[in-house]
Amino acid sequence: MQPAHIEEIKRIVATGRVLTEEFDRYSYSFDASFGTYLPDVVIQTADVQEIAALVKLANREKIPVYPRGQSTSLSGGPLPVKGGMVLDLSVMNDVLEIDEEDLVAVVSPGVLTSEIHKAAEQKGLMYPPDPSSSHVSTIGGNLAENSGGPRGLKYGVTKDYVIGLDVITPEGEIIKTGGRTVKNVTGYDLTKLIVGSEGTLGIITKATLRLIPKPPASETIMAIFDSLVDAGAAISKILSSGILPAKMELMDQASIVAVENYEPSNLPIDAEAIILIELDGHPAAVGAEAEQAAVLCKEVGAREVRIPKTPDEKANVWKARKLVSPAIVRIKPTKISEDATVPRSKIPDMCRRLQEIKQKYNVHLVVFGHAGDGNLHPNIIADKSDKEEMRRVELAVAEIFQTAIELGGTLSGEHGIGTMKAPFLEMELGTAELDMMKRIKQVWDPNNIMNPGKIFPEPGQKLVLT
Amino acid sequence: MQPAHIEEIKRIVATGRVLTEEFDRYSYSFDASFGTYLPDVVIQTADVQEIAALVKLANREKIPVYPRGQSTSLSGGPLPVKGGMVLDLSVMNDVLEIDEEDLVAVVSPGVLTSEIHKAAEQKGLMYPPDPSSSHVSTIGGNLAENSGGPRGLKYGVTKDYVIGLDVITPEGEIIKTGGRTVKNVTGYDLTKLIVGSEGTLGIITKATLRLIPKPPASETIMAIFDSLVDAGAAISKILSSGILPAKMELMDQASIVAVENYEPSNLPIDAEAIILIELDGHPAAVGAEAEQAAVLCKEVGAREVRIPKTPDEKANVWKARKLVSPAIVRIKPTKISEDATVPRSKIPDMCRRLQEIKQKYNVHLVVFGHAGDGNLHPNIIADKSDKEEMRRVELAVAEIFQTAIELGGTLSGEHGIGTMKAPFLEMELGTAELDMMKRIKQVWDPNNIMNPGKIFPEPGQKLVLT
Repeated sequence: MQPAHIEEIKRIVATGRVLTEEFDRYSYSFDASFGTYLPDVVIQTADVQEIAALVKLANREKIPVYPRGQSTSLSGGPLPVKGGMVLDLSVMNDVLEIDEEDLVAVVSPGVLTSEIHKAAEQKGLMYPPDPSSSHVSTIGGNLAENSGGPRGLKYGVTKDYVIGLDVITPEGEIIKTGGRTVKNVTGYDLTKLIVGSEGTLGIITKATLRLIPKPPASETIMAIFDSLVDAGAAISKILSSGILPAKMELMDQASIVAVENYEPSNLPIDAEAIILIELDGHPAAVGAEAEQAAVLCKEVGAREVRIPKTPDEKANVWKARKLVSPAIVRIKPTKISEDATVPRSKIPDMCRRLQEIKQKYNVHLVVFGHAGDGNLHPNIIADKSDKEEMRRVELAVAEIFQTAIELGGTLSGEHGIGTMKAPFLEMELGTAELDMMKRIKQVWDPNNIMNPGKIFPEPGQKLVLT
Repeated sequence: MQPAHIEEIKRIVATGRVLTEEFDRYSYSFDASFGTYLPDVVIQTADVQEIAALVKLANREKIPVYPRGQSTSLSGGPLPVKGGMVLDLSVMNDVLEIDEEDLVAVVSPGVLTSEIHKAAEQKGLMYPPDPSSSHVSTIGGNLAENSGGPRGLKYGVTKDYVIGLDVITPEGEIIKTGGRTVKNVTGYDLTKLIVGSEGTLGIITKATLRLIPKPPASETIMAIFDSLVDAGAAISKILSSGILPAKMELMDQASIVAVENYEPSNLPIDAEAIILIELDGHPAAVGAEAEQAAVLCKEVGAREVRIPKTPDEKANVWKARKLVSPAIVRIKPTKISEDATVPRSKIPDMCRRLQEIKQKYNVHLVVFGHAGDGNLHPNIIADKSDKEEMRRVELAVAEIFQTAIELGGTLSGEHGIGTMKAPFLEMELGTAELDMMKRIKQVWDPNNIMNPGKIFPEPGQKLVLT
């Protein structure tokens, strides 16, 4: 970047900080995925007018702009792959208003998602989307990637709760999309176009989120299976019985063993799979539904069903599920976390195919995730310094994507495309649909300055993990 | 249209009908809103390849294309305002599949929405969106307009249930957006961009809809108020108590009186407002919630709360609500049905302002609708042959829109912009946001052939009802 541009940036940013030292910039060169890319400058400001002026400068001078929250992205969303400026929006965290009458939250992008959960619950309300990273990830990142989480089964994903946005366009204009009402059909739905566009269509500076009354009670069930296929059958059976659980999570044997080795949690290491279910709603309803779900699990071959009674017992079950990610990186240091998603009826097929891929490429594959909505997380554990292993991992990942698409599913359920899955995009979408997406990008961001290098593959781009 | 184009259309449409006689075309010149516009030709075909070929011809020759379902639109969505070809998609009604395992319905655009309700319920499932016209409107029209209905309060609107589409683009390309999974973040969300775009971005030829388990029980409550403001307060109180009703409908005194004059339904004609509530879910939950809601209504001044017990009694209460629309057109022949929507906390303010508008312009204004989500339906009853009255109606409608926006709401909650509200669009969106919408339209439909004349106002366009 030209020194004159840095000087202009410093003049614009009256209320924040402009970081140009290499050690500062290095902290902004990576996320939770792969690769390190040094930005030219990092800007911390919470002032919308200043950010709009920075974007105008960037657009005029064709400088890449990379908005960033806490950078927990698993797909490379915030990576500054073409240098330029990083906007650290984690500093924009001053607004967190809960309106009990309108049932909305109004939030700044730098607010942690778990803070929204807490603030809503204090007023008897709930913000349903709960990505597993919610205690460390910002709502801005959740909005950019349209994050999911276990509650997606019953409650849907981030996008389903966003009804209004303040956005700075790639040309530096400030617009407000949607509003404060759940029903709104005034013109095109820019809100839902921008949520999940991975920061390529603008910078979100405020969001209005829909809240719902917090369900007064919940029950947890753990069903233990000697057969992964039976576990898949139990999921289908419960969903078609009229019960809609808040969460329905699967852990395969490899995840169970990893957790028990990491922190003993009273999980059955000889089981081929366990399903964890959370039911929420009226106390009378969830009690009856828990009993019914237990019976259904046994009917399809569960060898044991546990219904924890105290809040502590329930919390321990869910803690075991949360331990999977930290547990598996103890096996080997590099974790490739995928989120290929299939129609729920294809969960047993997907499980079978994943086992074949594991053997074919001799990779350490662990399967767990949000089975109730078809959003499994096949994780491959490897060592990125082992180039031969990483090449097998690349092939295995490509085959996982292909399998998901063959089964009528999608490359990404909740992590986004970013840099990691861009090479596979056309395989799912085809040329014509991809072209319609590119047209929007091109006409909204004619100089391609907003988060360039994401979603849309460069010619000949391939997945490279080494 | 040139005769050569008609001949080419006839050659393309091998499996359907091409209507060119004036009496046939006249049937396609109006909808449930205002104005009559004769198309040049009407085409009935259920063949996707034929429709794609027609769109290619239209794009090449710049012929306007107007897709149409059952034309129950209240905003002018299907009106062929610039002539050209009407595509009668009500004939494309062959697919209605319910998949109990994936919890989805796959439907053709010409299927009636109520048929989807029935098919889902037969398998213990529910398709929640329930626009009041569902027994006569097609799902294609619901998708184009992103229809709402009373259940929007708890369950959201049409868009919230659409996860995949087959679409013909304005250049005649066939694309598939989304898929069969609830979670999908692969590229831009074209599904939710196209749903609600009022037929201006392409032609939907198939849709995949998310279903949920049908709630096993429901309860109905009617609360009777001597004060409209107290009724508004009751709505807020119930929603902030942790109860989320499936429906929460308001009828003002004018609607109550109209229904009783039309078909006596045991409604209290001296009440200033009634609220009708439907709770659905587990039997134990809805029973307890009905009692609690009744207590809350009495606390804020309801003079009486009725909880019908038998299915017939419940059905009669909801029938009375459905009678409002037919009842009010008995007063005068012309009904201008609006759907300006405000944040729910502003419902009492909106009711007050509507009464002021009624007096200021001396119009016959009736207020009812989906109060729980802020989506009131102020209806003005008039006689369109009375030009002086219609001019007062035009002014009243404009002031209703302005009031909704002043209160933080929107022009349209569920009917769409169409021709009727286009003149007011910029008032809500501002220049910059409107420009971002127009860019999408322009780059997707460079020859402006898909439903031209809708959403985006022509220079100087005004609301004209005479």
